[in-house]
This record gives sequence, structure tokens and C-alpha cells, in this order.
Amino acid sequence: MKAVKWYAPRDMRLVEIPIPTPKPEEALIRIESTGVCGSDMHYYVDGRIGKTIMTEPLILGHEYAGIVEAVGPEADSTLIGKRVAVEPGIPCLRCEYCLKGHYNVCTSLQFPGGPPNDGALCEYIAVHAAFCFPVPDAITPAEAAMIEPLAVALHTIELAHLKPGETVAILGLGPIGLLTAQVAKVAGAKQVIGTDLLEYRVAGAAKYGVDSAVNVSDADTVDAVMEATAGRGVDVAIDCARSTDTPALACRVARPAGRCVLTGISGEEYGQFPVDIARRKELTVTWCRRFRFNFPTAIDLVATGRVDVKSLITHSFPLEKALDAFELVSHAADGVLKASVDQ
Amino acid sequence: MKAVKWYAPRDMRLVEIPIPTPKPEEALIRIESTGVCGSDMHYYVDGRIGKTIMTEPLILGHEYAGIVEAVGPEADSTLIGKRVAVEPGIPCLRCEYCLKGHYNVCTSLQFPGGPPNDGALCEYIAVHAAFCFPVPDAITPAEAAMIEPLAVALHTIELAHLKPGETVAILGLGPIGLLTAQVAKVAGAKQVIGTDLLEYRVAGAAKYGVDSAVNVSDADTVDAVMEATAGRGVDVAIDCARSTDTPALACRVARPAGRCVLTGISGEEYGQFPVDIARRKELTVTWCRRFRFNFPTAIDLVATGRVDVKSLITHSFPLEKALDAFELVSHAADGVLKASVDQ
Amino acid sequence: MKAVKWYAPRDMRLVEIPIPTPKPEEALIRIESTGVCGSDMHYYVDGRIGKTIMTEPLILGHEYAGIVEAVGPEADSTLIGKRVAVEPGIPCLRCEYCLKGHYNVCTSLQFPGGPPNDGALCEYIAVHAAFCFPVPDAITPAEAAMIEPLAVALHTIELAHLKPGETVAILGLGPIGLLTAQVAKVAGAKQVIGTDLLEYRVAGAAKYGVDSAVNVSDADTVDAVMEATAGRGVDVAIDCARSTDTPALACRVARPAGRCVLTGISGEEYGQFPVDIARRKELTVTWCRRFRFNFPTAIDLVATGRVDVKSLITHSFPLEKALDAFELVSHAADGVLKASVDQ
Amino acid sequence: MKAVKWYAPRDMRLVEIPIPTPKPEEALIRIESTGVCGSDMHYYVDGRIGKTIMTEPLILGHEYAGIVEAVGPEADSTLIGKRVAVEPGIPCLRCEYCLKGHYNVCTSLQFPGGPPNDGALCEYIAVHAAFCFPVPDAITPAEAAMIEPLAVALHTIELAHLKPGETVAILGLGPIGLLTAQVAKVAGAKQVIGTDLLEYRVAGAAKYGVDSAVNVSDADTVDAVMEATAGRGVDVAIDCARSTDTPALACRVARPAGRCVLTGISGEEYGQFPVDIARRKELTVTWCRRFRFNFPTAIDLVATGRVDVKSLITHSFPLEKALDAFELVSHAADGVLKASVDQ
Repeated sequence: MKAVKWYAPRDMRLVEIPIPTPKPEEALIRIESTGVCGSDMHYYVDGRIGKTIMTEPLILGHEYAGIVEAVGPEADSTLIGKRVAVEPGIPCLRCEYCLKGHYNVCTSLQFPGGPPNDGALCEYIAVHAAFCFPVPDAITPAEAAMIEPLAVALHTIELAHLKPGETVAILGLGPIGLLTAQVAKVAGAKQVIGTDLLEYRVAGAAKYGVDSAVNVSDADTVDAVMEATAGRGVDVAIDCARSTDTPALACRVARPAGRCVLTGISGEEYGQFPVDIARRKELTVTWCRRFRFNFPTAIDLVATGRVDVKSLITHSFPLEKALDAFELVSHAADGVLKASVDQ
Repeated sequence: MKAVKWYAPRDMRLVEIPIPTPKPEEALIRIESTGVCGSDMHYYVDGRIGKTIMTEPLILGHEYAGIVEAVGPEADSTLIGKRVAVEPGIPCLRCEYCLKGHYNVCTSLQFPGGPPNDGALCEYIAVHAAFCFPVPDAITPAEAAMIEPLAVALHTIELAHLKPGETVAILGLGPIGLLTAQVAKVAGAKQVIGTDLLEYRVAGAAKYGVDSAVNVSDADTVDAVMEATAGRGVDVAIDCARSTDTPALACRVARPAGRCVLTGISGEEYGQFPVDIARRKELTVTWCRRFRFNFPTAIDLVATGRVDVKSLITHSFPLEKALDAFELVSHAADGVLKASVDQ
Repeated sequence: MKAVKWYAPRDMRLVEIPIPTPKPEEALIRIESTGVCGSDMHYYVDGRIGKTIMTEPLILGHEYAGIVEAVGPEADSTLIGKRVAVEPGIPCLRCEYCLKGHYNVCTSLQFPGGPPNDGALCEYIAVHAAFCFPVPDAITPAEAAMIEPLAVALHTIELAHLKPGETVAILGLGPIGLLTAQVAKVAGAKQVIGTDLLEYRVAGAAKYGVDSAVNVSDADTVDAVMEATAGRGVDVAIDCARSTDTPALACRVARPAGRCVLTGISGEEYGQFPVDIARRKELTVTWCRRFRFNFPTAIDLVATGRVDVKSLITHSFPLEKALDAFELVSHAADGVLKASVDQ
Repeated sequence: MKAVKWYAPRDMRLVEIPIPTPKPEEALIRIESTGVCGSDMHYYVDGRIGKTIMTEPLILGHEYAGIVEAVGPEADSTLIGKRVAVEPGIPCLRCEYCLKGHYNVCTSLQFPGGPPNDGALCEYIAVHAAFCFPVPDAITPAEAAMIEPLAVALHTIELAHLKPGETVAILGLGPIGLLTAQVAKVAGAKQVIGTDLLEYRVAGAAKYGVDSAVNVSDADTVDAVMEATAGRGVDVAIDCARSTDTPALACRVARPAGRCVLTGISGEEYGQFPVDIARRKELTVTWCRRFRFNFPTAIDLVATGRVDVKSLITHSFPLEKALDAFELVSHAADGVLKASVDQ
């Protein structure tokens, strides 16, 4: 089958590799669509995220969906022929983290599209069938691939313990930020304030549930949020950017006893936090690690139209042009939100 | 009455001021003992904690106990004549934070011994009677003044959501660290690992519930904790130091999905955090802001002997010698843990 | 001023009493509207709720709103002239429950319209100003009086820890049930199943967010919910009825590890629970006691149109006709949902 | 191998059956000791627990420990030769409950010693290796079999969200009650009040952490607890009895906003609850379903001597005399607490 492999920063090549064989509990999936993620950019451009470094050629891609073509003897055979969104990280299901329901931090978890596991920029993949979630026919392949980032947004809001009537600031209005804004509204947020440095993202944010969007290339984030909340700060501040500055800003815009969830990935090992302010406010900061069993709800939100993923997919490319998709996203060019690679 | 007032870094003077008059809901307390706190050191030595700056002369001291001499007409008159430990911060009891039970972050809270409120290095203080908690006769004045830091330790463990059988690292083995270690054991901690730079604190930690104490002036904190936990990390990592480094170390020694509680006060506005590691582990970090209704339990723990505060009080001074107490603590001299000023 | 006083079951009389004088922290409110609550029916018809028995004549009514005419010297004077919805129960603000944020169970709480405290079926009332919440001008008096039952619905959903994507059963589609259904949807419920014995309530439930409403006078509640959830049961089962049967049904329709919130008041002292089923499913059951600081969000939900209270007010009466309002509600006649008494 | 099979109430017979063969992920365990549980009594005496009815002969027993003799090819081979305590219920590890960490309510869970799964009153059993927890050599087989009921006690306290300094009532001082009392103390309970109808259990309770034990055959439970708590009630009320009355008593002795955990099994389908009181206090009631990953902590508590299981084992029988063990326990004769069957 065809696959697109990363060899070095900004160097990905089309190669031929064998189709995988599913293990007893696995499904073999013919991939229809793979999304390009902000976290992919760190690998694509820098060859690393924090201490995780690309030392070998690797197939990227972890936001994907496709059709189940076959299953192993211990997997659910009713999946065959169905379109599925796939929760990409496969945990061991035996360790303390898995048994406690915190499988997203399983230390044996295998995550595709990050060293050393090949990902989904190819035609077929074999994966544990319990992590394949059927989607209704009305959901297109590219939308089904968006279930993965939507699951990140859902997990983010879950970690925020958001209650109806609360206010939310979202720093970073890329696909994750705009999905998180929508989920915040689904969860009853009273007010969502969003910030970004790119005008096209700020300008388009209203349709995704952002009540007031601020371009912080020419405004102060803290001033903007404090003004919008009459000086109180927000109940929940969420970092959805790829920035070293936004975690500290999240702390500064949260109200006393507020919660911050940090979902964005700066790519750096360290970042600065305003410890004096955070202590006086008794803040709680939680870092978000992907998701934990959020796919069923994500699928429902798309199927019922409560979350719009379709309009976030601004660009599509065939597998052979995956490099173009990555270049586009790496430059935030042409008003790109989500670029989709369709196999 | 006599009072000891801060005028400038390392400059405190004995002055005469009027005895206060209690308001209707207040008790007038004849102060018997006031403890010297690590947070006092920031004001004493640097004249500031983060952005809170001493611009006027001020009476320091917020860990105190004494005898109720009189009460206002709306206060509980059965308090008269009793020794009480006093929860120092008085909230407004009307705002959203107070009504939600999060009164320690009330934005109108009046805290003694920090700008602009005079503290307890004096002979009398008037304070809302609902925050005066009677102690049994067997508890001495200096021990009663230790209820306040013990309440900090209790709140720290509460914020940690510690469960029986969990492992704890405590970075910093001063009074707060050693009280937190004891409370962790009371709460069922399986193993408490403690670290400090001062050998006398490391050497004496075992009697306060620290199972393995490590002098990190000549050892690596992360290595030490990982070795003690077979590479897993601790369920709960607590910063009880006055250091800019320990918050980041707390993040590094916590297990995946672990919790960090940051109780120590570096005195700086900003600190570095290992965001890459914290995100991969999906850590939760909570800053501890003093306490919230922890005095009754703190008193019970001392009264029943489950927590030893007595042996932590290594030095005592009369009010006139308060400056000596502050000098001693500021130099961590003579094996000092807690210095007590007895009025 | 005029007041309507209960003397015996189904016997309420118009009387003249003095206008109250506000205490220092109180506001004097000219009442504009008072809602008739299901819990009032227990007092009106039976003269008791469980062990709380009406032994003296009493003014009923606790769902009310009005205009602040004056305030005491310690109350917020900016309230004067404003229309406010009033959180009726006034806690002591000093006890452990108040200080822990659980003031709705304060054992000194004074609740109007229940023995021994007169309520709001009159023209003026004096109440602690911190519990008077201004509403926007667009909210009518009768709608403002609905903030109180909406706060019950919000507290119910809060106690349910409802997350986006979860399924909810609501047993009882009176005003509280229909408000709870709306709040469940605001909080992101995927599916709300409602049941009632009265066809007009079932028939009209769809507009309040009930996805499938079942008349259980001729259907089995458990069968209906299990069918609607493919045999799984609901994440959250809520009792909003005045029935001795519905708490047990709530337990039976909840999924394993599900949560039940019991908000309805049967009026009896005891009720049967299916302990064998509840244990096998490891259910959590929480009884709802009114509300805790839910008025600000309730007001926002009405002001922004996300919750419809207006159409629930099916009948209005002047104060002199309060008896007619109570009779109507007691017979669930004429399609009544909420009856409003307008002073 | 030998096995003891239940045929009818109070009729169990020694039979010969084949030794099982472990599946790939399983361990084969030579059973050394099996405890007799209160829940076994319902099957032994009545042939049912609630709606679960014994319709076929069955081997009882689910509290067991033994030596791993062999493992399947996918199981951890380092277990071979080790003594292990076994978490008896084996979940599917694929369903929503398992993936969310709530595997004890997995609807496909296989639990030994209850219909239709044979249990551990035999010589060998094969079980998923991930649920075999090695114990230190110093722990005897009969003590190792006590890890299972201790895990129930730990889960009970976990569900209670017990915090240091809180008060606890334990209704029923059999093995589960006395283990729960010990765990409550490990978790920092200030005061444990225990009740039972059997004088020998009341008389011996002090050594297990019960501060005040009350024989309620001649005293009122509610009066006793209220007296011991100065009228406030306990923070946490736990039912550990086999009674239809104790759940309601638990509700009545809990303080406002208190928590009740119901661990005892009455054996009936329904029970009465004081709904009026429970609602006014806004109680939370949680039923306890066995345990969830509590074995590691249970083992540590026994290994470190913080929980005494040894003295609870009052009687021992060889496998051939299992019937005598069951008869003894069914009559609560001879001061029995835990009867152990040693293979």
C-alpha cells in the first residue's frame, strides 16, 4: 500500500509498504481520511515535541477514519463494512492506570504517528477493535476524522468541570480552540471569550460559539478578558494554542479558585507560570492528555448537528499531496483551519 | 499596648499603640503566643511577596492564639475566658466565593500581618468571633498558635485528595513540610518521601512521619523519588519550600495522572514548569491558599496527640525580642524549626 | 398590608398585618409576584411535609420577586429601585455548613412560607440583601418569581454532575420537571426521557427539551426508559414528582454506576428503595435540598432565552384570589403548570 | 481435584471435578485458603441474594488466596511460585464501564461463587493474571484470603470520600464492619461509633478502631450516635450489616450534607428509607459494589501492620469440613468473626 513517510523536517515522501495483518482482537481499516493536527506540526517542522525526538523515518497521522474491512477472531465482527472513527492510542488494559480508567496515561500506550509508531498517512491500519467507533452514514470520512480532535475538546471541557452558567476563555482559535468553544457552549457556558493572533481566525470565531473574539496581536489578553468579565476573570481558562506564553495568560485571566486546562502544546520543555498570582487565587491547573473514552459523545454531537466540524475542514488533499497539506498548515496560510488528507 | 512594628527589611521596633475595641460580632483577644512563619520572612527580609509590597510600617504575625477577654453584643459570649486558636483571615461572608465555601479567596478578605492589615505581634487583637476556635486546656499557648500552620497542612492534604495507600513526596522539611508529612500519615499515606537542603531538617524528619528523607544539597530530587518508588513516581507531590525550583520538581516526581499541591511560597512572581512532562502525565497542579475551615480538625489532631506540634517549637522569645526570633528564622540558624513569640 | 394566611387545610384567608421593618443588613421588598409551588400543596392540603407540621396559621409562599423599596444601613444601597429575585432561605453565615458552602442545610436557616416563618403571599417582605439578585428589566415579575424553581432545577443538575453527552430520565413533568429538562439540555444532555401520569403534561413536554415523553398511566416506566436507551439505562435519573413510587423507579432506570437525584417531595416520611438493584449497580442517590447560590445562573438563562419560564406560567391570580390559585394547582386542573399570584 | 458444592440450602457436598486449564492470559492457582463471607450466607441459607437465585448446584467461595502454579502464554510468568491474593471478579476490559475505570459494574463481569460461576471452595482455579496480586511471604494464606474483604472496606471508605478529622458510624460489626472501622482510622477518622446486636462483637470492637461500640439490642441506634456526636450526627454513616433496617438508620444518623455508604447486603429486594429526613439533610447515599483496584493498598495495610486481619480469623476448617464453617457462620455461633477454609 501507499504511505507518506517523514524523513526530516519538511521532508515527507510517498513510499510503498505492506498492508498490516490484524491480530486476534484487531480490526483492519481501510483509511478514508486523515486530518493534519497542530501537534503534527512539531514533528513535521522541528522533528520533536519536548523530549520526544524523531530519530527514524516515520509515518505521521493520528486523526483518522475509515471502513473496517476485516477483523481478527476475538474482535466484534459486526464492525465489518462500517465506517469508524478510531481512538488512536491503544493502552495495555492491564496496568493500574488502565484499570483505574485513566488509560490515556498508560505507560505502555501505543500512539500512532509519534515515535516509534507509524501513523495513518497510508491506506490501511490494524487497530484494537474496542477503539473503533461506528459513525452514522451521514458523517463523511473527513468529518469522521474530525472526531479525534473533537474528543480532545470534550476531554478538555471534562477536565475543566465546566458547569452551566460559567464563563470560559479560550486562548488560541485553531481547530482545537474552535471545537472547544463549541463544546463549552454545549456544556452550558454563559460566555466564551476567545483570543488569537491571526485575524482570519478571530474574524470567523463567532460561528463556533465564541461570544467575543479578540485579536491579541494588538491587544492585551488579560485586559481583554478582564474587561469582558467586569474585572472578575473567567471560571475556566483554556490554553489551545501552540505558544509558550498562553499557559501563563490562562492563569492570569482565571478568577479566584478558577480552573485552567492546558491543552495546547508549545513544543518546548519548560514554560513560565505566574506563581504568585496563581497561589493567591488558589488556581487548579490541569494538563490535558488527549482523551479518555470521549468518542461516543463526540460522534453524537456531530451526528445531531450540535457541533459543526464540517466547516472547519477548509482544505483537502489526496494522499500523494500530503506534503502540501503539511506545508499549508505549517504556514497557517490561505485561511486554513483543518487540512484533510483523503486516501 | 505593646506592639512590634516592621519599618524596613530587618528593621522591627517595639511601639505603643491603643488596644482595639471589638465590633458587635467580634471577640477581643489577649494574645498569648504568635508564631514566626516562613511567609513572614519574605516581608521581613524583602519587604514583599510577589506583587504585594510593604509600603508602610506594619505589625507582622498571623499565627496566634490567646484568651478571649470580651465579645461584642452579636458574638458568642460563651467564648469569654477561653483560649482560642484564631483563623486569621476574615472574609466578607457575602460574596460569591464566601457563599460557595471558598472564602479563603474572598477578594475582600482581611488578613492580619500583611499589607495593609496589622497583625498579631502585639498584646490584643479584635477579630470576628466565628473564627475563634476554643482549644482544650492541655494545649499550651505556643501549641495553640501552631494550629494555624497545621491548618495549612490539612488544607494542603485536602487539596491533594489523598487516599489511603498513596505515596507522597514533600519538598521542603520546614514546619509546614513536617506538619504536612504528619497529616499525610494521618490520612493514610503509604509512604512519605521528604527532601530538604538543610541536614538538620533531613536528619530530624523521621519522627514527623517522613519515611525516607533525602538531603538534596548533594542528591538529585527526581532520582531520589524515582528510586524510592521503583520508577513510578508519587501519587501526590507537595511543594512546601521557599524555592523557585521545587514546583517544577514536584511536577517531575509525580506519577502519571498524579496531583501536585504547591504550598510553598518562593516570593517571586514567576516560576518555570516542565510543561512537556506535565502534559504527557496529565498532571493536576493546585496552589494552596492558606486554609478553609480546617481549624476544628487541626485542634483535634493536636489534642489527641496524632500530630506533634510541640517538638517543632524549637525556640521561644518574649515580645520584646521578636526581632531576634525573626533574625533566627531568616538564617535558619541553630536548628530552628518554629520560633515562637510569647506575649 | 394585605396578606393571605393559611389556617387549616384548604382554608386560607385575606388578613391585614403590619409592613415589616428591615434590619441593618436587610432589604425591604415590595412583592410583585409569588409562585405557587408543588411543595406548598403539601402544606395547603395536608398541613404537613413529612415531620414538619403546620400548628399555627401561616403565610405561605417562597417563590417571589419584587422591587427593593429600602435597605438597612449595612445593605447594598444600589439595590434600591431594582427588581430582584430573592433566594428565600436565609442561613446564619457562621456555622460549619455555611462556612463550607453548604448553607442550604444550615440548621439555623430561616425559610419563608414554612413553619414557623411567614412567607410571601403578602405585599412586603424584609430579607438579607445578599440574597436579593437583580434581574434585567425585560424579565417580568412573574418570570422573576420563576427564578426560584429554576434554581432548584439548576441545583438538581449540579448534584447530578451531568456531563455533555449523557442521558437523563426525568420522572414527573410539572414545573420542576420541565425546568430540569431544560437545564439538562443546557448542560449538554444527549437525550432526555420524561414521564408523567397527566396527558397534558406529557403532550406539552417536547418544547421544554424532553426528547421522548411517556404517559406512565398506561405504560411501565422502567420498560419505557430501557427501550429508549437500548437496555442500558440512563446516566442520570431524576425524580421531580410528588410521588412515593418515583424514587424507586429512578433507581431502576439508572445505568450501572449511574446517579439518581431526588428532588420531588412525596410528603411522606418513608419510601421504598430497590436495594438489591441499587447495590449491584453501585448507584449514588442524592437528595436535592432547594439550591445553593444558583440564582445568578438562573437569571442569566432566562435573560438570554436559553430557558423558557414564561410559557410555564399558565395561570395568574391577584393576591385576593390566592385561594383559587392553590385550589387549581391542588387539582392539577385546567392544564395548569405554574400558577402565579400577582400582588 | 476436590471441591465443595452447594446443592440446596444448608446442603453442600464434597465432589471430585477436573483441574481447570488456564487460558492464555490466565494463571492457574493452587488455592490455599478461602474465607466464608456474609454474602455467602444468603446463598447458603436462602439460595438467593435479591433476584439472583441459585438454580443449579454451585461451588461457593470468592475470598481466596493461593500459589500460582502455572500461567498462560500471555500472562506474567514472574507470578509463578508466588502467593497471590486474587481480585475475584473478572471484567471484560472492553466495555464503557471497564474503560471508564468502573469495571466492578461491568455487565459482563464473571464473579466466582455466585450463579452461574463456580467459586473457590476447591483446590485449583484459573483466573486472569492481571487480577492476581502477590503478597509478601509474611502474610499467611488465611490472611491473604482476607485481602478480599479488606478491599471491600477500602472501597467503602473511598466511596465515603472520608477526610481526616471526620466522624464515622458503622452499623454492623462483623468482619466487614471491623475492617471498615480500621480503614476509617487509617484514613484519619476522628471518631468511629459502631453498633451491633451481638454482644461479643460489641465487646471486642475497641481493638479494631471502634471508639464507642453500642449494643443496639437494648439501645436506640439514632439516640446512641446523636449522643456521641453532641446532636450533630456523623459525617459518614456506613451500613455493614445484613439487615433491612440499617440503611434507614444510616440516613438518620448522618449529619446534614452527610454521606452514607451502604455495603451490607440485606438479601431482600426492597428496603425502607426515611426520605423526608434524607431530603432535608441533602444526603448522598452510595451503594458499595465490592471493590475497584483496592488490592494493592489492602496488601500494604496488612503487610505494614496498620490493619489487623489475623485476629479476625477466629475459626479454621479443612476443605472437607467446609459445611461446618458455613453452619458456624450462619448461626453466628462461638464468637465467630471470620471462618477460614484451608485447602
